[in-house]
Parts: sequence; structure tokens; C-alpha cells
Amino acid sequence: MNFRPLGERALVKLVEREQTTASGIVLPDTAKEKPQTAEVVAVGDSEDVQVKKGDVIVFAKYSGTEISLEGEDYMILDSDDILGVVEG
Amino acid sequence: MNFRPLGERALVKLVEREQTTASGIVLPDTAKEKPQTAEVVAVGDSEDVQVKKGDVIVFAKYSGTEISLEGEDYMILDSDDILGVVEG
Amino acid sequence: MNFRPLGERALVKLVEREQTTASGIVLPDTAKEKPQTAEVVAVGDSEDVQVKKGDVIVFAKYSGTEISLEGEDYMILDSDDILGVVEG
Amino acid sequence: MNFRPLGERALVKLVEREQTTASGIVLPDTAKEKPQTAEVVAVGDSEDVQVKKGDVIVFAKYSGTEISLEGEDYMILDSDDILGVVEG
Amino acid sequence: MNFRPLGERALVKLVEREQTTASGIVLPDTAKEKPQTAEVVAVGDSEDVQVKKGDVIVFAKYSGTEISLEGEDYMILDSDDILGVVEG
Amino acid sequence: MNFRPLGERALVKLVEREQTTASGIVLPDTAKEKPQTAEVVAVGDSEDVQVKKGDVIVFAKYSGTEISLEGEDYMILDSDDILGVVEG
Amino acid sequence: MNFRPLGERALVKLVEREQTTASGIVLPDTAKEKPQTAEVVAVGDSEDVQVKKGDVIVFAKYSGTEISLEGEDYMILDSDDILGVVEG
Repeated sequence: MNFRPLGERALVKLVEREQTTASGIVLPDTAKEKPQTAEVVAVGDSEDVQVKKGDVIVFAKYSGTEISLEGEDYMILDSDDILGVVEG
Repeated sequence: MNFRPLGERALVKLVEREQTTASGIVLPDTAKEKPQTAEVVAVGDSEDVQVKKGDVIVFAKYSGTEISLEGEDYMILDSDDILGVVEG
Repeated sequence: MNFRPLGERALVKLVEREQTTASGIVLPDTAKEKPQTAEVVAVGDSEDVQVKKGDVIVFAKYSGTEISLEGEDYMILDSDDILGVVEG
Repeated sequence: MNFRPLGERALVKLVEREQTTASGIVLPDTAKEKPQTAEVVAVGDSEDVQVKKGDVIVFAKYSGTEISLEGEDYMILDSDDILGVVEG
Repeated sequence: MNFRPLGERALVKLVEREQTTASGIVLPDTAKEKPQTAEVVAVGDSEDVQVKKGDVIVFAKYSGTEISLEGEDYMILDSDDILGVVEG
Repeated sequence: MNFRPLGERALVKLVEREQTTASGIVLPDTAKEKPQTAEVVAVGDSEDVQVKKGDVIVFAKYSGTEISLEGEDYMILDSDDILGVVEG
Repeated sequence: MNFRPLGERALVKLVEREQTTASGIVLPDTAKEKPQTAEVVAVGDSEDVQVKKGDVIVFAKYSGTEISLEGEDYMILDSDDILGVVEG
């Protein structure tokens, strides 16, 4: 099953703390209530999406919509709520 | 009886959990308070509608207007509240 | 006495449940707190009005302004609050 | 003394229930909390004003600014708050 | 000392009830909580200012900023909050 | 140390009541809760800034951000919150 | 590890009071509840970003998103929340 985000949206998977991501980045310990880190799984076809599949991104607090696909938790984020990209 | 959504709106029918949709997609178990899944029944004529009849979509929480047609429950969604399409 | 709506507005008359409208459509039983159905009586001259006299429409909850003309109750709706058209 | 409304505004005089207006229209009994009816006394010079002096109009609830001129009560309405015109 | 309002603003002096203004207009008794009347003292250089020095204007409730210049009270009003002009 | 405001902003220094400003203007006694007066120290490079260094300005209540530079208190104001200029 | 801010955003590191920044500027003692000072670490590629790496900036209260990278605390700021640049 695939999920195709519409427009400026991205589907992301939350990255656990101190976890190594699929692209090999080890994420630092982040305090509670801090913004969250996620890996991009799929993006919409809008030119305004500035991230691509595999990017590890930081997104704004209180943003996004949680979604469960095949038993795993994802988030759908608006492009404006993606603050930046963590590069290894 | 038909319902013709105006503009950027879509008429959708809620998909029950673990239900098989008309197009054969089996939907995963989704936790409570999660965004909801629906199948598109009709769309308005605006170019901004990015879904078509039969698409299984995920829509934003707290969006849409419930409507009952011939004893069955539907929702009318604004195009902006359709987050993405689930593909089999 | 006539009422001429200005701009994008429409004058509509609420349709009772299970009632047969002037154009012969029998409306289904709708639960309480559901959006309401009405028949268009007059429309403003804006191009943005997508309905015409006699259309049976569904409008958004909490929208419109009630008005009494010659002892009968009507509503004045903004075009944006008309969600779609019920076709027989 | 005259009052010249600026821009898209209109100066109107409230019409009492069951009262006959200056232009001879007898207004119906309207329930409490219903939108109010008024007669246009003067309009601003904006093209967006779609009413003229003498029109009997219905305006949105909670709109307008009350003003007293030479002991009589008027209201200043924004053009957007004028919902339609009652025609005899 | 002079005060030069910037942009679309006007400097006005409140007119007391039943007072005769500098231009000779006698203002009517207005009830409490009614909009207020003022005389324009200076205007900004924006084309959107539709009043001139000496005009007696009515302004919207809860608008404007009070200012004291040389012991006298004035208000600075945005052009949008000036509802109309009282003409003698 | 210098502070360079960005865009439409201005750096201003609050003027005490009855104080004589650097440009020789004696400011009147202003009541409490009245808008405040300040002298412009630096401005951003936007064309929308309508004041210059040395101008004595009145700014809107509840606007601006306080900043301490070398032990002295300043405010950073958005251009829109500068209501007018006091001229000697 | 690097963090690449997207669009009009900047990554900044908070500057402690009375601290000497990397570019040699000694910052004054600022009272509590005052706006905060930070040093720019990285900026997005939008033309609207008016600061560059190494700039010491003042940002608006209640703005920005805290982020922890490799055990150090940073903030991600929108360009609009950067009020000005402190120059040595």
C-alpha cells in the first residue's frame, strides 16, 4: 500500500531519539517538548515541496496530522511546517 | 438521487476500519482520534480538485460537513482538507 | 413583494424533512444537527453564484441569515456556504 | 444637516415593523432576533455600493454603527453587510 | 508644535455634544455609547484619506489612539475608521 | 555598538515627559496610558519607513519590542506602528 | 552534522549575557523578559533572508522553534522575526 500526499504535503515517519536513520544519520538526544525529527517517505507534486524522500527533517511543533498505514505511524506535514533538513 | 458538489468540494463516503473498499483496497486498523479515510463518490468541477471518483483518501480531522442522502451518511469535503490518496 | 439578493448571495426557502419540493424531489430523512437542505428562490447577479432558482441545495451549518418575508421564513446564503446541489 | 458616508458605506434609517416606508412598501411582521430592515438615506461614492437612496434593504445582524443626527437614529452600514433589497 | 500624521491617518479633535464647531456646525445631542464626532486637524499624505482639515467626521467605536498635545486631547484615526462627514 | 534595524523597522529611544529632546523640542505632559513618544535613532532600509533619524514620533500602544543596548533602553518599532511625527 | 534551514528561515545560537561572541562583540547586560540576542549559524536560500552567518541579531519575543543538535541548543527563526543586527 502506498500513500500519495497531495499538493505541498509530505508523508514522514517519526525518528526515535538516538536512533540511526535509514540514511545512517545518528540523531542526538533531544529534550522533551522540543520540535520533532522525521524521515521523509513521500512528497506531493507541488514545486513548493523543498524536501525529497529520505531527507531527515525537523518540523514545527503542533503541526501535521497523524496517520496509521499498515500498522505503522506516520505524519502528513504541510510544506510550511518543515523547518529544515538535517544533513549527515 | 445525485449530489453534485460545487466548486472545489468532494462528496465522500466514510470507509470502516479493516473494510475492503469497492476498489478492493483493504484498509489497516487505525487508532481512535486518527484522521479518517473515505472513498470519493463525486467531485466538483474546479481544477483544484485533485481526486476522482473511487479514490480512497485521507482527510484532515475536524473537516467536512456530514450529509445524509437516501439513508446513507456522506461527507462533503473541501479540496484543501484532502491530505492524500491511499493507493493499493 | 420580492427580495433581490445582492452580489454572491442567494435567497432560499428551507425544505422540511421527507417533504416533496416544488420540483418533485422527495428529500431523505436527515438526522438532527446535520446540514440543511433548501430550495433556491432568488440569486444575486454575481458570476460566482453557481445555483439557479429551483435548485435544491445543501448549505453549511451555522451559515446564512434568517429573514421573514410576508410571514414565511427564508434564509440569505453566501455563495460560499452552498455546498452542492441535490439532483433528482 | 447632511451626513455623507465615505467609501462603500451607506447611511440608513431603521424601518419599524408593519410600518409603511416612504416609498409605500408595507413591511411584514418579523420575529425578534431576525435581521433588520432599513431604508437607504445616503450612500458613499464607491462603485461597490449596490444600493441607492430610497431602497429598502435587509442588513446582517450585528453589523453597522448607530448614529444620531438631529435627534433621529440612523445606522452607517458597510456595503458588504447589505444582504439584499426588498422590492414592492 | 505640530503633529504630522503618517500615511492614511488623521489627527482629530473630539467635538463635545451640543457644541458649535469652528466651522459653525451645531452638533445634535447624541446618546451615550454612540459613535463619536470629531473635527479633522491634520491628515497624512496618503491618497486614501478622504477628509480634509476642518471636516466634522463620525468615527467608528473603539477606534483611534488618544494623544495629548500641549495639554489638549486629540485622537489619531486610521482612514478606514472614519465613517462619514457631517455637512452643515 | 550600533543596531541596524531590518526592513520596515525603526530603533527609537523613549522620550520622558516634559523632557527636551536632542532636537530641542519640549514635550507636553501626557497622561498615563496615553501613547508614547520617542526619538528615532536608526531606521531600516525599506522605502516604507517614513521617518528619519532625529524625528520625534508617536507610536501605537502595545506595539514595539524593548531592547537594551549598552545599558540604555530602546524600542524596535514596525513602521506601521508609527502614527505620526511631532514637529517643533 | 549540519542543519540546513528551509526558505526564509535561519538557524541561530543564543548568546549568553555579557558573553563575547565569535566575532568579538561583547553584549550588554539585558534585563529579563527582554528580546533575545543570537548569532546566526546558517540561513535558508530565500532572498528574503537579510542576515548572514556570523551576524549577531535580535529576535522577537515568543518567536522561533528550539532545536537540539549534537547536545547544543539552537533556534530556528523565521526571517520576519529577526528585528535587526547588532554591529560591533
